[in-house]
Amino acid sequence: MALRVQKYGGSSVGSVERVTAVADRVAAAREQGDDIVVVVSAMGSTTDELISLSRQVTPNPDPRELDTLLSTGELVTSTLLAMALRERNHPAVSLSGLQAGIRTDSDFTRARITEVEPHRALDEISRGNIVIVAGFQGTTDAMETTTLGRGGSDTTAVALAAALRPEACEIFTDVDGIYTADPRLVPNARPLVDISYEEMLEMASEGARVMHHRAVELAWVYDVPIHVSSTFTYGRGTRIHGGPLMEIRNKVRGIAHETDVARVTVRRVPDQPGIAADLFSPLADAGISVDIIVQNVGEDGHSDVSFTVANGDVEATLEHVRTVATTFKAGEVTADRQLAKVSVVGAGLQNSPGYAARTFQALSGAGINIEMITTAEISITCVVRESAVEEATRALHSAFDLEETDG
Amino acid sequence: MALRVQKYGGSSVGSVERVTAVADRVAAAREQGDDIVVVVSAMGSTTDELISLSRQVTPNPDPRELDTLLSTGELVTSTLLAMALRERNHPAVSLSGLQAGIRTDSDFTRARITEVEPHRALDEISRGNIVIVAGFQGTTDAMETTTLGRGGSDTTAVALAAALRPEACEIFTDVDGIYTADPRLVPNARPLVDISYEEMLEMASEGARVMHHRAVELAWVYDVPIHVSSTFTYGRGTRIHGGPLMEIRNKVRGIAHETDVARVTVRRVPDQPGIAADLFSPLADAGISVDIIVQNVGEDGHSDVSFTVANGDVEATLEHVRTVATTFKAGEVTADRQLAKVSVVGAGLQNSPGYAARTFQALSGAGINIEMITTAEISITCVVRESAVEEATRALHSAFDLEETDG
Repeated sequence: MALRVQKYGGSSVGSVERVTAVADRVAAAREQGDDIVVVVSAMGSTTDELISLSRQVTPNPDPRELDTLLSTGELVTSTLLAMALRERNHPAVSLSGLQAGIRTDSDFTRARITEVEPHRALDEISRGNIVIVAGFQGTTDAMETTTLGRGGSDTTAVALAAALRPEACEIFTDVDGIYTADPRLVPNARPLVDISYEEMLEMASEGARVMHHRAVELAWVYDVPIHVSSTFTYGRGTRIHGGPLMEIRNKVRGIAHETDVARVTVRRVPDQPGIAADLFSPLADAGISVDIIVQNVGEDGHSDVSFTVANGDVEATLEHVRTVATTFKAGEVTADRQLAKVSVVGAGLQNSPGYAARTFQALSGAGINIEMITTAEISITCVVRESAVEEATRALHSAFDLEETDG
Repeated sequence: MALRVQKYGGSSVGSVERVTAVADRVAAAREQGDDIVVVVSAMGSTTDELISLSRQVTPNPDPRELDTLLSTGELVTSTLLAMALRERNHPAVSLSGLQAGIRTDSDFTRARITEVEPHRALDEISRGNIVIVAGFQGTTDAMETTTLGRGGSDTTAVALAAALRPEACEIFTDVDGIYTADPRLVPNARPLVDISYEEMLEMASEGARVMHHRAVELAWVYDVPIHVSSTFTYGRGTRIHGGPLMEIRNKVRGIAHETDVARVTVRRVPDQPGIAADLFSPLADAGISVDIIVQNVGEDGHSDVSFTVANGDVEATLEHVRTVATTFKAGEVTADRQLAKVSVVGAGLQNSPGYAARTFQALSGAGINIEMITTAEISITCVVRESAVEEATRALHSAFDLEETDG
């Protein structure tokens, strides 16, 4: 008798009908003889509705209050699913974040899990119960309710799997798995059979959005293999795991893209120690994530520095950077919001000559100008005009023969 | 600086607008310099909507799951009210039943409070926070979420007041206080300035419905004075308390009525020991509340027994009673569903000759037939046809000069 941890996301439980469909799926898994722990998200748009409710009261909801408010969404789903399973004659019990032992720090709205105390879940399993855990939430040592922020329910599932060591940690979502590229852009993209944590992380942070990078990171640290598949079909899905695959393989696995990209450029930055720190520390303090940073070769003791941020952060970034630029007498600070990035992802790319050249040739062949380039251990990323991202993704997908992938 | 416990019911917080209106009221109380603990119900019809959601999943929701589901309603109100107060620059913090230390037994859907541990609430008060407590909910020693059943939020407020000993326990509702009779039936009914616990209990159980009898009982046991008034007006309301008023006064305080009354009659019950126990024990075991019991004077070793139950319990009652009646060879068992009761309530009525006679004269004068009579320490109750209840209430209200009450 194996233990399985399953997670169903918001669209999988988007209505009462879908909750009962999930109950059928969980019941089927149970009838195979396995013990089941299910993690659920809030139903469909519930979280957005609760946020909207709070905004009718105040433009700046208190984070502590907001977390308790939002935590009710997952409580509703978890209790309904437990009821639906009991209706199917399967003993089931819902557990809140508190009851499931999801302990966090007290950084409300984006708490990090510090510990999972799985005693209660294990007790319920040993009593023959299917355990339904409200995802996305936890509690501090002071019994404060917290939420985990983006990717929260995935993170709950992986953290529980790290504590419970199930045979499988299954993430059910609205897609068939991790694709070689976004199928909306590349019609002949195909789901991968497996992918390494590191590659997945690159795909996720580059925009694959099937699983939040934070949950993938946690899975990597605790070596929790994850199986991603669709709630709505019975496709084979994608297995995300460590193992020997990184060593024995050396090929492009997928093309990721991201359209929420803006570039900020600071002209004529003096080449002197400490400038980079002065430039980027205020952004870090303001919680602004800087992605790609490129510094051109300087001349006459100056160089141009460009970096990318999310479009929503451009105004704040300009404000901070202009202040700093003035103090060290740099030149103009400009922003370009019409950009996107496209990445070729695969283990060992950086150590293998030819991949970068092939990437640039493919884009060039499609008549696409490259605005910025950055390479990492397992990826080559090019910033292009936003209008060209679709064609760029298709060109690279084709250049690396991904439509013929073995998965 | 005094401490005040305030409770706002479902209609008082029936919409976001009303929650913000309550925030204004609480803020005004705070600005008088008092410390405030607020207990809130779920917004308007939220509880009914959650029950309906559960019924879409199963006709018989598991009580434990239902309690966690329903508890979310009060969490939503409490967090929104805390946010609204912070928006008004008043530090406020919401507490769940767990956080507020509302400990209960594990009788889900109708848990009883076993203990209130007010440490967290006191800490928050000492930090200058207004404390908002989610009503209607508690937790067991095993950290299970429970709900308190009918009258739950009133009970939360009184239990907190019993632990915190505030200057006032204020129940805000949609009426101006406790009336001499239901104003929908008796247009010149007036709110009482004060009423004893015992009288209030009689008014509540006889249908006044402003506060649940369970909360009044708890207030009586712990001698917590309660002030009932309207959220929507600034009337003076009614004070419910113990004190000397029962001894020094000896008059009719109000007329209560109740229309959900059915009478079951068992003919020719043999006069032998143990019959009453045999008749009523199965009903108690089935959770059926029997209200008035009348046994006529018997002849030839038999008597007729009549008693009242709620209309919804008639079918089950007939089934149980007919089984027992057969075993001891009683006669026919019949039910009459078209009844109501009307009660004259006031401390010391039973010991004061004349009140009963005046009651019967008033009903007789109005041409109303009395079907059953029962008297208690502080009330005289007559069962009448349901069609006559309105006129009976008006006749008694007038007979005891209640429109001229000093309140």
